[in-house]
Amino acid sequence: MAVTEATVDPEAPYARDGLPALGFRNYWYPILASRKLGKRPHAVTVLGEQIVLFRDGGSLHALEDRCPHRGVRLSAGTCRFPSSGTITCAYHGWTFRGADGTLAAALMEGPNAPVERKVRIQAYPVTERAGLIWIFVGDMNAVPLEDDLPDWIHDQGRFFQLSYVDRYRCNWRALVDNWTNDHHAAFVHGHSPELVFQPHLPFAQTLEPKVLSHGRGMSFLGRDGIRSAEFPGLGKWPRRTWHRFMKPTGRGASRNLLTDKARDVYQVKDPYQTRLPGVVLIGRAHGEYTLVQWAVPIDAETTVLFNINCFRRHGWLRGLYDRAHYLLWRGWAHDVIFSGQDRRILERLVPGEERLSRTDAGMIAWRKFAGANARTPDTKSSRLRAAGD
Amino acid sequence: MAVTEATVDPEAPYARDGLPALGFRNYWYPILASRKLGKRPHAVTVLGEQIVLFRDGGSLHALEDRCPHRGVRLSAGTCRFPSSGTITCAYHGWTFRGADGTLAAALMEGPNAPVERKVRIQAYPVTERAGLIWIFVGDMNAVPLEDDLPDWIHDQGRFFQLSYVDRYRCNWRALVDNWTNDHHAAFVHGHSPELVFQPHLPFAQTLEPKVLSHGRGMSFLGRDGIRSAEFPGLGKWPRRTWHRFMKPTGRGASRNLLTDKARDVYQVKDPYQTRLPGVVLIGRAHGEYTLVQWAVPIDAETTVLFNINCFRRHGWLRGLYDRAHYLLWRGWAHDVIFSGQDRRILERLVPGEERLSRTDAGMIAWRKFAGANARTPDTKSSRLRAAGD
Amino acid sequence: MAVTEATVDPEAPYARDGLPALGFRNYWYPILASRKLGKRPHAVTVLGEQIVLFRDGGSLHALEDRCPHRGVRLSAGTCRFPSSGTITCAYHGWTFRGADGTLAAALMEGPNAPVERKVRIQAYPVTERAGLIWIFVGDMNAVPLEDDLPDWIHDQGRFFQLSYVDRYRCNWRALVDNWTNDHHAAFVHGHSPELVFQPHLPFAQTLEPKVLSHGRGMSFLGRDGIRSAEFPGLGKWPRRTWHRFMKPTGRGASRNLLTDKARDVYQVKDPYQTRLPGVVLIGRAHGEYTLVQWAVPIDAETTVLFNINCFRRHGWLRGLYDRAHYLLWRGWAHDVIFSGQDRRILERLVPGEERLSRTDAGMIAWRKFAGANARTPDTKSSRLRAAGD
Repeated sequence: MAVTEATVDPEAPYARDGLPALGFRNYWYPILASRKLGKRPHAVTVLGEQIVLFRDGGSLHALEDRCPHRGVRLSAGTCRFPSSGTITCAYHGWTFRGADGTLAAALMEGPNAPVERKVRIQAYPVTERAGLIWIFVGDMNAVPLEDDLPDWIHDQGRFFQLSYVDRYRCNWRALVDNWTNDHHAAFVHGHSPELVFQPHLPFAQTLEPKVLSHGRGMSFLGRDGIRSAEFPGLGKWPRRTWHRFMKPTGRGASRNLLTDKARDVYQVKDPYQTRLPGVVLIGRAHGEYTLVQWAVPIDAETTVLFNINCFRRHGWLRGLYDRAHYLLWRGWAHDVIFSGQDRRILERLVPGEERLSRTDAGMIAWRKFAGANARTPDTKSSRLRAAGD
Repeated sequence: MAVTEATVDPEAPYARDGLPALGFRNYWYPILASRKLGKRPHAVTVLGEQIVLFRDGGSLHALEDRCPHRGVRLSAGTCRFPSSGTITCAYHGWTFRGADGTLAAALMEGPNAPVERKVRIQAYPVTERAGLIWIFVGDMNAVPLEDDLPDWIHDQGRFFQLSYVDRYRCNWRALVDNWTNDHHAAFVHGHSPELVFQPHLPFAQTLEPKVLSHGRGMSFLGRDGIRSAEFPGLGKWPRRTWHRFMKPTGRGASRNLLTDKARDVYQVKDPYQTRLPGVVLIGRAHGEYTLVQWAVPIDAETTVLFNINCFRRHGWLRGLYDRAHYLLWRGWAHDVIFSGQDRRILERLVPGEERLSRTDAGMIAWRKFAGANARTPDTKSSRLRAAGD
Repeated sequence: MAVTEATVDPEAPYARDGLPALGFRNYWYPILASRKLGKRPHAVTVLGEQIVLFRDGGSLHALEDRCPHRGVRLSAGTCRFPSSGTITCAYHGWTFRGADGTLAAALMEGPNAPVERKVRIQAYPVTERAGLIWIFVGDMNAVPLEDDLPDWIHDQGRFFQLSYVDRYRCNWRALVDNWTNDHHAAFVHGHSPELVFQPHLPFAQTLEPKVLSHGRGMSFLGRDGIRSAEFPGLGKWPRRTWHRFMKPTGRGASRNLLTDKARDVYQVKDPYQTRLPGVVLIGRAHGEYTLVQWAVPIDAETTVLFNINCFRRHGWLRGLYDRAHYLLWRGWAHDVIFSGQDRRILERLVPGEERLSRTDAGMIAWRKFAGANARTPDTKSSRLRAAGD
């Protein structure tokens, strides 16, 4: 069938499992690096909702970004009363409490104006952790932040984080589909700086998707992969491998290679986890490092990806080394180049009918799991919270 | 309620009173500075209608900007027959009379082609005054220009004008709402060059909207304002006033300060008037100067604002001074900075449901008045014309 | 009637005769200069369809530009298996045969994956001729290329070609309307470099549209034109002719001026032909040269125009001269300037209701002919193929 604007339906692959175009509500999402929010209010869009962020006197607030009086964006306003935790609209001085969205004053009406008691706008639960601002967008009371954050992020005593933020012109679902061990890595990333000298990643595996014990996500274990093959009529692929002289580092190995220390001391069980609402944890075999990638839906065609690099704390010297290593190598090799390879693909994806095959088993299981288990106001959220990460 | 693209309705505040998104028809509007129309035809859009302006042999014409033959814009054509008052389409030479839109010739058909007598396009009444081109867009015969122009503009013997034109990315109605003495001035303009050294403008006034005797607009008289207050839980506002050492010049005073001369000699009664179709007159207390601001709807999301600065004529030396003063001070301080403060607000306005309060009394009255009294083809326009301005 | 966005209907002039907005299907169209397609796959849009072009081992292929697996554009992929005539998707290595769109391998599934036999995407007939890539977009088996190409292009033994490609922001139908001898030339091109020193083109002719004997197009013979006239109330037009001292070269003469040699030796009968699907042949009187202009619909608002300059072969020295002449004179004078005059008009055309007159007789006949005679899967295409060109 010819590809025209009329023949593609972006909802086709997701409608059956109920994955919403604007993302799962009722979760915490990272939205901005903390250092990007200064003295001026900052407008963001998350899950299609327009929100203003502001700081005042050490506290952080998020409100709907529209003054209900005459409709001006609150992000055009300022914090006029230091330490009061309020933001004041730029048009007539309506001043809202960040904590609950109530109207503290309508300046141009004078003190104690009758309107004060009648107006309230939506306030969003918002907080900071790991150098990022997190917001809860939903239709229920916010769950505790640690319900939604892996220990690698919320446990600041044991871990520290370095983040890289990028914007994708694609729907968030396509980005999360990419995190279901569908063997694209061998193909897309085989020549990335991290992998170019290692043996080619195995493919044509038997894939075992499993729901993790904590109930908030899945892992996808591949077995029995091959690293190259002769394809009838085409020839051998991959064609050239002479430069792949290094030993594999675990990524893409045919089973989860965890060191004894990682397994026994650190209690790492599943280094690769794809979680609700759209998060992937990619841990290294030694258990000292995990990359958390968080897909944040902006609108139906835009996603912001937070690459949160999480390091186990081992004193200041090791911390210094980890930072330098990230700055000089991994930040470039992975967050820029490796992720950039995915981005190039995902931004050239025309969503619509799919022709899935056995390597999509993980993705199919993920979509079904996510659609069935995403938190709703009816969910007792603690049910989903188990022992550890 | 969360702010999303789906939750805002730009017609919500205006539907009840019948204020049309594309502006009130059947009025004269300024559309272009005279000096911007040279030898080439010029395309403009006003009230959503596409119009071509052209001059020929001293006369000025406005026609619909599409040749009915094959659809090419007449603004791509030229005036091929000097002093004939015609414009010729660039495609096949169909030549239209600017005066009435009839077809003077279809060049490629040869002289006296049968089609000539059968074709007529819409001609718009158009004229020049005060260095501006004015057009009447409507569904009736044009009223006399002076019916729609304040004396400050149409009486060239007593007044002269200097204009500044700016483009706003907002609907015209939001701009006119801004001219109803809703006390935004204290808030938005308090630090503009004109006001920063004057006492803070009073707010929390009792506002008295009144329909003017000439029936074409309203004035909004504020009484009993306060200049600062202590707001419970927030503190004093405005916070710093040490730099406001000048005397007030009238703008924003608690009543209309008119000098004896302005009142008795010049017969100025209401220096602040908001008029149909979307015009504001802001006069100074001394009666020597009035700013006329004219909101011209282009399309539903665009408005052009004409700042027409009107000066009373007092001989060439005073005229020279007024021009220099405008050039060096007021053009910058008001038309660029002061108006720019409004523009920043209005372009950040998300139209939709409003939560109006007592300071919006003028705006509410204006919308009701405008919707009920705007000229229609059924209106006997002279009824609306009274003694003076 | 005022011209607004709501009052124009781009289908109005074409609906009655059934001329489709996206072009006539089931024809060969040029889509790209051959030299523009290198080693990397190239994405094009034709008749609203998204297509990837690629070369591999000397063969040229065109497939629908979307991998059915997960939806990524194949134009983001590469040809991984030289000389196999395949393209491989960048995401998971699905590898398609260009010849028929079947799946040669799904690399990440390993060799002989079950999915291979079940997947097939649309392959488009595609070939090269005259330095251009040609594609057949339709709902039937492709007709032979020479059915759709004039001898001037497909007969490489007798002719050679030099092409110039330009993009128009207008629908393809407006461009073809322009090729029906509607006398716009006198008006639009009268001051082009080619015509400025020649007598003014005659207009107000009797126009005789006739269907050509090969059934694939029409010619439009004008008779009895005048070169200037006195228009009542306007004056003489054209006004100045002192600079038109050259003899006419045939273009726009009142009858088809063909030299004896052209007529008797070269068998040229109708040097001006407008053909399906949207092509014009403009031959010179001497029969040594014809310009073929091909309108290629991209989408409803975009057309690509191929100016294919065709020269009769007369040995290398004459060929050298023809190339130099094109490079130094005609490429600029016609393909850039002359065609650019049309483009300026056509891009300022607001499609909608028309008021046609006697000079549109050719266009009216063309639309009727094209709507009635365009090839469909039911047409026996050979019926339309007659002796020569």
